[in-house]
Amino acid sequence: MPTSPAESVTLPSPWQPITGGVTAPEGFLAAGSTAGLKVSGKSDLSLLLAPVGAVCAGSFTVNQVRAACVDLCAERLAERGGHARAVLTNSGQANACTGERGRIDSLRATAELARRLGLEQSEVLICSTGVIGVPIPIDTLVAGLDDLVAALGPGGGTAAATAILTTDLCDKQIALEATLGGRRVRIGGMAKGSGMIHPQMATMLGYLTCDAAVPAPLWQAMVQRAVERSFNAITVDGDTSTNDCFLAFAAGEPLPPEHLDALEAGLTAVSQHLARAIARDGEGATCLMEVRVAGTASDAGARQVARTVCGSSLVKTAVHGRDPNWGRIVAAAGRAGVPFDPGVVALWLGDHQLMEAGQPLAFDRPAASAYLRSRATGAYLSGDPALGDTVVIRLTLGAGPGHGLAWGCDLSDQYVRINADYTT
Amino acid sequence: MPTSPAESVTLPSPWQPITGGVTAPEGFLAAGSTAGLKVSGKSDLSLLLAPVGAVCAGSFTVNQVRAACVDLCAERLAERGGHARAVLTNSGQANACTGERGRIDSLRATAELARRLGLEQSEVLICSTGVIGVPIPIDTLVAGLDDLVAALGPGGGTAAATAILTTDLCDKQIALEATLGGRRVRIGGMAKGSGMIHPQMATMLGYLTCDAAVPAPLWQAMVQRAVERSFNAITVDGDTSTNDCFLAFAAGEPLPPEHLDALEAGLTAVSQHLARAIARDGEGATCLMEVRVAGTASDAGARQVARTVCGSSLVKTAVHGRDPNWGRIVAAAGRAGVPFDPGVVALWLGDHQLMEAGQPLAFDRPAASAYLRSRATGAYLSGDPALGDTVVIRLTLGAGPGHGLAWGCDLSDQYVRINADYTT
Repeated sequence: MPTSPAESVTLPSPWQPITGGVTAPEGFLAAGSTAGLKVSGKSDLSLLLAPVGAVCAGSFTVNQVRAACVDLCAERLAERGGHARAVLTNSGQANACTGERGRIDSLRATAELARRLGLEQSEVLICSTGVIGVPIPIDTLVAGLDDLVAALGPGGGTAAATAILTTDLCDKQIALEATLGGRRVRIGGMAKGSGMIHPQMATMLGYLTCDAAVPAPLWQAMVQRAVERSFNAITVDGDTSTNDCFLAFAAGEPLPPEHLDALEAGLTAVSQHLARAIARDGEGATCLMEVRVAGTASDAGARQVARTVCGSSLVKTAVHGRDPNWGRIVAAAGRAGVPFDPGVVALWLGDHQLMEAGQPLAFDRPAASAYLRSRATGAYLSGDPALGDTVVIRLTLGAGPGHGLAWGCDLSDQYVRINADYTT
Repeated sequence: MPTSPAESVTLPSPWQPITGGVTAPEGFLAAGSTAGLKVSGKSDLSLLLAPVGAVCAGSFTVNQVRAACVDLCAERLAERGGHARAVLTNSGQANACTGERGRIDSLRATAELARRLGLEQSEVLICSTGVIGVPIPIDTLVAGLDDLVAALGPGGGTAAATAILTTDLCDKQIALEATLGGRRVRIGGMAKGSGMIHPQMATMLGYLTCDAAVPAPLWQAMVQRAVERSFNAITVDGDTSTNDCFLAFAAGEPLPPEHLDALEAGLTAVSQHLARAIARDGEGATCLMEVRVAGTASDAGARQVARTVCGSSLVKTAVHGRDPNWGRIVAAAGRAGVPFDPGVVALWLGDHQLMEAGQPLAFDRPAASAYLRSRATGAYLSGDPALGDTVVIRLTLGAGPGHGLAWGCDLSDQYVRINADYTT
């Protein structure tokens, strides 16, 4: 299974990429194993264990219908004031819309795991992903826990990142390192998700680890800001799942306050990498779309326009057809609910300017189409990162100070086939 | 070209279907002709002429980026206090994002037509549909006006309904007749639209004629309510166009006030027929989806949930895959932003109940899948209306008095092909 390609985006100083994913930070252990929950026979149980004293910040789906495991995570983090030690993930069954049984199964899974790890039940969290409405074969899960715990180790990042996947085509991992105030600090992350991806939150599971301690309330605020600029800025298909969950652990020596801004920059970079990796791996996608909007009155307005353009089926199909159909981009911007003067709109596709002052320019259509084609056959599957796989759309909507970003992917016939055939 | 099938929905008493479309009402003339605006060589100019004294109510796109012709329609209706005599429609070029030239072309087309019809320019409206950003070949259009005017007649409804189409697979027409207070009243309608269809408004052009006179302000209010329950309740792809326009003409003997409710019921039935015909003809669609929501606190909430379910890519692809994937339906309802208790949700697919009290029932999956298959091979293309082509999804979300309806269609790989290949 390929790993998502390195970002072309410049990392914030002084962060540098390293290997190891969620187990790159000091003291974190992880594992992935196969309990037999998936028909495919692929690995389906993932475990992440944080050091003693770890704080944990959670961000959860806003769907009114949410899985029992999401409720349990939120309750336990509240109960322990933002502290947790471990998170179990089962893939194959989402355990959403499963009523009382879903709750009982989540409780049993975490109780069995807590006993094996010597932890309190309330220190153990659980995430589930897969088909909605199907209960977890809970005896099969419990029977797999001994193997899972036995596999825990400081090199388990990739196994853990693989076991959380469902329709994903590649695992999604990253780790960064920096020297802050003379000491080494590391941040790692992993995520899954390729369908039901839409802001608040993207349909996804995400996990982050950090080996510098930050007080729980401060950590929660830093994580929430990072989520807003990453997972809440991606869309694949407009659907928000019942199971979205992002959990960020921090444990180790406390970091002096003067380095918290640098830490947050790293946290945001890790989150954005994972969010882009999810959008790039959108079901049926052949390229990542990045929409940059500027000139609105506020950043929130710019983000709203960027998300609307990213989410437009007509824009997504045009990108898939390698068709520089700028009219659809402007029409999508116009329905975002953010006021602007259509007479001042400027638009670029890559380096090709398509509109100025609200009117189309005589642009080189074959060259713009070639730009779209070159992104689609890019680094992601061909293995040549130099080609790139990101279609960049830039819109200027006025002279205001607002700017915003969103990421998505093209819409292909393959998306339809994947989702028309998923459960039957 | 097939005409959309008769509705299985019961018409409100005393209305009965008749033939003739927009020219069924007394005194209305129409025509369609070929000026050479479309590469395909299909008919591309449509004209509707209302009797002297006609009132006209308009409902327009809320997209911030709207075509020059939409601005012109709104301005002229305001200027003449809701009166107009004629509307010209050109198909092939949307004349949106064409700046000053778009305005000049719209003015010239209506001026040339007004001269040929012996009308004031401000009595003539214009609608354009087709590719955004491409100007109308205006000399070609003007050169076609003599033929168009020469073709005007009381049997021109079908020719007019055909000439407004773009990617539509069939024309969309209806006419109803009733006896109100001892006199015959007729309402006719035609519409186009199959992509960029989403509430406020659906991406579409719609035209309605009525041979009973109603004072302009009253008529505008009646039409707006009908639009809310028809065109604003359909979605194909979530995109709102730059050109949406619905124009409703009424002219003839005044109708006594005691018959206005019956007239509004007919007006709503005609609008709903046209709206459903647009959704049924959604690009790449193989069936119509009707979502009925009940039990919310308000009708507006129920409509919002119904629209969200109808617009969910995951629900649409599941229906296309003939997959009774109720989890996606509930997940879509949960993200509609309307509060409800997930523990009371009940769900039906046709007559198959899939959920009760928020939990899945053990339903006959092959039978539910067969229900979906039977809708998809229905009346629309096979010509056997008895089979039906509507997938009905019913959701009860509580004990509240709210209820609402929305219509949409399945999402197929064909949708992607149509939209990936449209302009290049």
